[in-house]
Amino acid sequence: MNSPPPTQAKRPLNVLQKAANRLVSVRLKNEIEYKGKMSNVDPYMNVILTDAEEFENGSKRANYGKVVIRGNNVLYVKIEDRL
Amino acid sequence: MNSPPPTQAKRPLNVLQKAANRLVSVRLKNEIEYKGKMSNVDPYMNVILTDAEEFENGSKRANYGKVVIRGNNVLYVKIEDRL
Amino acid sequence: MNSPPPTQAKRPLNVLQKAANRLVSVRLKNEIEYKGKMSNVDPYMNVILTDAEEFENGSKRANYGKVVIRGNNVLYVKIEDRL
Amino acid sequence: MNSPPPTQAKRPLNVLQKAANRLVSVRLKNEIEYKGKMSNVDPYMNVILTDAEEFENGSKRANYGKVVIRGNNVLYVKIEDRL
Amino acid sequence: MNSPPPTQAKRPLNVLQKAANRLVSVRLKNEIEYKGKMSNVDPYMNVILTDAEEFENGSKRANYGKVVIRGNNVLYVKIEDRL
Amino acid sequence: MNSPPPTQAKRPLNVLQKAANRLVSVRLKNEIEYKGKMSNVDPYMNVILTDAEEFENGSKRANYGKVVIRGNNVLYVKIEDRL
Amino acid sequence: MNSPPPTQAKRPLNVLQKAANRLVSVRLKNEIEYKGKMSNVDPYMNVILTDAEEFENGSKRANYGKVVIRGNNVLYVKIEDRL
Repeated sequence: MNSPPPTQAKRPLNVLQKAANRLVSVRLKNEIEYKGKMSNVDPYMNVILTDAEEFENGSKRANYGKVVIRGNNVLYVKIEDRL
Repeated sequence: MNSPPPTQAKRPLNVLQKAANRLVSVRLKNEIEYKGKMSNVDPYMNVILTDAEEFENGSKRANYGKVVIRGNNVLYVKIEDRL
Repeated sequence: MNSPPPTQAKRPLNVLQKAANRLVSVRLKNEIEYKGKMSNVDPYMNVILTDAEEFENGSKRANYGKVVIRGNNVLYVKIEDRL
Repeated sequence: MNSPPPTQAKRPLNVLQKAANRLVSVRLKNEIEYKGKMSNVDPYMNVILTDAEEFENGSKRANYGKVVIRGNNVLYVKIEDRL
Repeated sequence: MNSPPPTQAKRPLNVLQKAANRLVSVRLKNEIEYKGKMSNVDPYMNVILTDAEEFENGSKRANYGKVVIRGNNVLYVKIEDRL
Repeated sequence: MNSPPPTQAKRPLNVLQKAANRLVSVRLKNEIEYKGKMSNVDPYMNVILTDAEEFENGSKRANYGKVVIRGNNVLYVKIEDRL
Repeated sequence: MNSPPPTQAKRPLNVLQKAANRLVSVRLKNEIEYKGKMSNVDPYMNVILTDAEEFENGSKRANYGKVVIRGNNVLYVKIEDRL
């Protein structure tokens, strides 16, 4: 929805960048959740997930080899301990 | 909804650009899904699909020779293994 | 919702521009569809249609001599083979 | 929702500008429609209507001597043949 | 939702500015309406009303000595003949 | 949703700034209302309230020692006579 | 939804920045609430929470070791007295 925060203050985005190749859960505004390896993310929170699973109300709905999620749909990115 | 991320961090968009001419599934916020060859895509995720099919709740609803989807409606782009 | 993509990557928009004077179907987010000759389109996907017809759930609802659709409402522009 | 398209491509907006003082119908996203003389319009599609009538589901609901409609609510502007 | 239109084309906004200190009705997207003296307005359509009344479905709901309405909620500003 | 209006026209925002340390009521788009001392406000209408109360449909729901409300949720800020 | 306010007026954002490492409650537009330590926040209100808990209608729904919430979903950030 808007331009990314200026450089001096983008620490939440830096934390995300450092989590590249970690296992993450991405919940979208429509309450659907994607779990997979976050190959990459940009300041708009566009996210690439590989080997991803889609969950709705906790039950798995689909698998994705590689998916690019548009950042404006993202509610949060949870960085998982595993992997 | 906003200007594309700055150059140094747009890797998810680069991955999309490299998937040009691949078979993709584009799901929109309204839950409708389009499958077809992604002739092109831009940083706003405006997508051109050719020979596309429209699906709603898993059943095919229509065919499209060539369709330009406005990026702000996109939930995700799934890059298919086939093609 | 935002500024148009930068010049080097606006190919989906170029494809639209080249379709000027073609017959198109423009579906809006509210699921209403307009068919007519696309006299012109801009990078924000504002569209001018002439001799347009409005469809809701597949049935014709109205005729338009000339209508300017605001781009942010556009879901997709389908370029028709006819005309 | 965003900055207006750059000058070289704003032809739909030019067409609107040229329709100043014409009779128009402005439909909003909430499906309410305003008919009146379009005294002026800007690139964001903010519209001034004079001697306007408001319609909901085809029935007249109110009269307006002079009303300024905020552009982001606009679905389309239909340029009427009359006047 | 976006930056204000550039100077050369902001005539609807100029008309609003000239209506400062006039009696206006401001209808919001949520259908609630405010009537009062428009002390001031800016290009984003942020509006200051003084001695304002709030109406919902035509019945008065509250009084406001001074209220600042955020522009992005505005559907239209109707300039009243009175005052 | 967008950049703040340019300096020469931001009088509604100036009025808000001058109301710092006044008692205000902030109504959000979701119809919930917050009353408290407005310690500060910025041009995007991000608001800091101290000693705030939350109301839903007129009944108090919670107390807040210090809360920062994100501006894009704001419907209006009413400047109270008291305090 | 937009660029952050200019430097001279961003005091609400400064207050948030100073609350880093404090315990906060972040309520989102979808009414879900997250409580945890705010490791960091940026001008867009992207927030990193650690050791966070998710609440819906007052009952705890989940735990999060580390989560990055996208700012445009934020309704408010309440700074807690504890911690």
